[in-house]
This record gives sequence, C-alpha cells and structure tokens, in this order.
Amino acid sequence: MGMRHDSQDRNAEREEQERRLKTSMGRIKHKIVVLSGKGGVGKSTVTANLGMALARKEPAGRVGILDADITGPSIPKMLGVRGRRLDVGLPGVFPAIGPLDMRIVSMDFFLASDDTPVIWRGPLKSMAIKQFLADVVWGDLDFLVVDLPPGTGDEALTIMQSIPSIGGVVIVTIPSEVSQIVVKKAVTFTRKLNAPVLGIVENMSGFVCPKCGTETSIFRTGGGQEIAEQLGVPFLGKIPLDPRICEDSDMGTPFIIQHSDSPAAVAFMEIVATISRTF
Amino acid sequence: MGMRHDSQDRNAEREEQERRLKTSMGRIKHKIVVLSGKGGVGKSTVTANLGMALARKEPAGRVGILDADITGPSIPKMLGVRGRRLDVGLPGVFPAIGPLDMRIVSMDFFLASDDTPVIWRGPLKSMAIKQFLADVVWGDLDFLVVDLPPGTGDEALTIMQSIPSIGGVVIVTIPSEVSQIVVKKAVTFTRKLNAPVLGIVENMSGFVCPKCGTETSIFRTGGGQEIAEQLGVPFLGKIPLDPRICEDSDMGTPFIIQHSDSPAAVAFMEIVATISRTF
Repeated sequence: MGMRHDSQDRNAEREEQERRLKTSMGRIKHKIVVLSGKGGVGKSTVTANLGMALARKEPAGRVGILDADITGPSIPKMLGVRGRRLDVGLPGVFPAIGPLDMRIVSMDFFLASDDTPVIWRGPLKSMAIKQFLADVVWGDLDFLVVDLPPGTGDEALTIMQSIPSIGGVVIVTIPSEVSQIVVKKAVTFTRKLNAPVLGIVENMSGFVCPKCGTETSIFRTGGGQEIAEQLGVPFLGKIPLDPRICEDSDMGTPFIIQHSDSPAAVAFMEIVATISRTF
Repeated sequence: MGMRHDSQDRNAEREEQERRLKTSMGRIKHKIVVLSGKGGVGKSTVTANLGMALARKEPAGRVGILDADITGPSIPKMLGVRGRRLDVGLPGVFPAIGPLDMRIVSMDFFLASDDTPVIWRGPLKSMAIKQFLADVVWGDLDFLVVDLPPGTGDEALTIMQSIPSIGGVVIVTIPSEVSQIVVKKAVTFTRKLNAPVLGIVENMSGFVCPKCGTETSIFRTGGGQEIAEQLGVPFLGKIPLDPRICEDSDMGTPFIIQHSDSPAAVAFMEIVATISRTF
C-alpha cells in the first residue's frame, strides 16, 4: 500500500511539474534552440551573441538565454554572470540579469566548483532538466534562446523533448567537410522531433589577418552554405573568425556590444533580422 | 524457470565477452585515451595525428586507432578509410588498414548512412561499446590510441570503464579561458577513474598569416600550459593553427605525413616522443 501511495504521489508530482512547465513556457513567444552536430563549433558563442543581438532589437527584459548545456555550461562566463547566486521565491527560481537586461539561467549556477565533472547518468539528467525548465520564473518573454548540449545524443534529445512548441532550431557548424557529416545528423534529428529548422549558421568562416588584411580559410569556407542547399534548409549566414570574439567571451563582455561595428557583429545582427522575419 | 534460464545465459554471455575483451586488450602494450572536456577542440584531429606520428616511429602494423566517438565518428574520413567494409572472420572483426599500416576501427563503419543520427539511449550504447571492444581482432599492438566521445558524460565514462589497464590519458584543449574550465573537469574525471594523466595538449594555438608571417592568437594562447601547471599535470605541447590540417582531414590524407616539415607536424612528433619516454 505504501509503495502504491508513493508512486501515486510521484505521478501527481510529475503532472504538476508538467503543468508548471507548460504555463511557464506558454508565456514565451518564441523558443529558439541552438544545436550543433558536434561540440566546439562555437554553439555557445553563437547562442550568447544571437541572444544579445535579439536583446538589442527587443524591448528591455524580453529576451532570455537558457544554458541547457549541462556537460559544459559556458554562457555565464561569456556574459559575465559567472558565480551569480539565483534568487528563489515563492513562484520559483529567478533568472540572473545579464547585459542589456538579459534573463540568464544556466546549469553552471548549480554546480559546486570548477572541477566537478557532471558525471551524471541519463535518468538523473533528464529529471534535472525538467525541474530546471518547470521551476524558472522567466515571466513574459519575446524570445528564449536555448543553448543545447552539443551533438544529437541523449541530453540534446531529452531537452528538445522537454520544451513545448519550439519555434525553430538554429544549427551551427564550421565550414569543414568533416563537420558537414554531423550537420546532416542535426537536421535529421530536428526533423524527427518535428521542430522547424530555422537554418544553418557557418561559424569560424575565414580569418582576416589584422596586419596585412589577407583572408585565410583556416577551417575552409562555404561548407555551411553547401550543406544547407543540399539539405534544402535556409542558410542564415557566415560568422568570420575574429580573435576578439574569444577575448570578449573570456572577459565576460558580449562581443556584439563591445565590437558592434566588426564584420562578425554585423553578421550576427543580420542573422537575427532574418530569424525575426520568419516569425 | 524459462526467465531464470535466460538470465543465466545472459550472465554467461557477459562473462564470456568480458574474457574476450581482457584477452584482446592484453595483447596491446599501451592503451592511450584521448579526451577533451568539450568537443570541437580538435580531439579527433589530434588522435589521428598522434596515431600517425606513433606509426612513423613504430614497426609497421603495431599501432591502432579506435574511434569510440559514437556520436560523431570522424577518424575514417580523416584517414581516408571512410565507407570501408570490415572483414569478419571466426575470431571476430578485423580492423581496416589505413596509411602506414594503421589498424582502424570506428563506429562509423557500422552506421547506415550520413544522415542517421545516433539517437541511442544509454544502455544500448554501453552494450554496443563493450561488444565493439571485445569483438575486434587487433592482434599484437604497441599502441592503441582511443578517440573518446567529447566531454565527461555517459559515453566517455562507459568507454573509459570498459578499457582494462589504460596506459594514460591525453587531454586536448584550445587555449581560451572558457575551455580551461572543462580541462579541470577532464582531469578530475580521469583521476576519479584512476587512469594516469599523460598531459595536456594545447591545440589551435596561434595562427601565422601565410602572407605576412604575423602571428595572431585567434583562440588566445598559453591557456593549456597555464592550466597544466595549475593542476600539476605535464604539459605536452602546443599545436599551431594551420589551414592544411583541416584540408588534409577533409581529403583523408594524414597531415603529419603530407606536411611533415610544418611546425604543427613537428609539434606532433615531439609530443609522441614525450609520450613514448613515459613508458
């Protein structure tokens, strides 16, 4: 009897969580997920800068970033809110407030210290993510940009399935052919989950020497556009390599605000304009 | 009764698998695992080139690469053996033979097509990996270099736990501070699993303009050495950014052979010399 009771309680709890999740997510107009077939293509950098680019366009406090990359959450460091403690009130957990009134929540806020690896097994992760999503008090937002864990594995799958009515998915890649293979996987993954593909962003495209102006394609070039055409999905644009993007990320100052006239910042603003037009 | 029988059979099968795994791995002198706290730092590129650098030093046919990155296996493309069918005989599955007689096995050989994402749940993955490791006929090798899935999550954990007596772990990072956080996690992860840390490789360090010779630290510089000192682990060396590394990977020709005089190839040879000295 006791066990049956427990499982009834758990079910009721789960239903209640589901309800809160739906209510909370229902107050966010557009939920955009940033995905990459593999890590290290600059998914988090692109998420942070797309979020900041949206925040420049929208009224204050109407854009949020959810750093759902539980294995390597880097958004707080990039946006200068690392180590921030979140306020907890009656309705739930309040996001940290970043530059341009950005609402930020990251798994990083809940990790004990730098050197704690998240050696969590699947089921635990899934529960943590759902609680995460249900308990955050985002309020009314125009955009929530979600930084997914890299790849098309368990974590990405769980998070995608936990977010009701995703407005669209942005897929980030670098130009190399080796990376094109995983872009195909990311598109297939998105389609299987019935989410709209907003398009592909080619990151780390071409590097212009600051001394002589010579452009070198360190990771090749054009791979993003090529694979977009091949798969019949929109190509959103190229972000050139710029050492200041990495510097700003390390300093916790948003590149797109610090260097708003740079070709890379202009590219981010154009991508955001394209995304805004699709809604 | 029937069910009990089944579970007895399964146990016997598992014990038999474990035995074959131990026998097979026992014939390999040094098992080196290449790990990164996050993806996209060039872990697979480093694995491929370290493997080829070892193959240049060792007698023919004494080095193997196991591409255990089940979410985005890229070694076969990098070493020009993509799409190769593996021979299966009585003792098991035979590795593909790559450049310099390299023995290569990759999950990519078992995937249906480019656009099939490996949306596998944890338990299935773990079984696949163990079978993988038990069924491959590596023969007598001096070195097996294992390309782990990126990060310190389930997959990396499962594979690390499946390989008996790991000789050492090489941790790959890019120089940026954001990446240093995950290096700490990778070191903690390795120590928790009682495997020796061979050292840290700083990849994508500095780029020299081919036109004017100006060096730019696109992803900053020195982060690898800094974190190695901080954590008290050896620093193995820096690999500079070189567009030919990416080109060669896309062409399936090993960079270290094609451009053996380049600073990056020399850096790889030096790292391998250091690793060899530790055994």
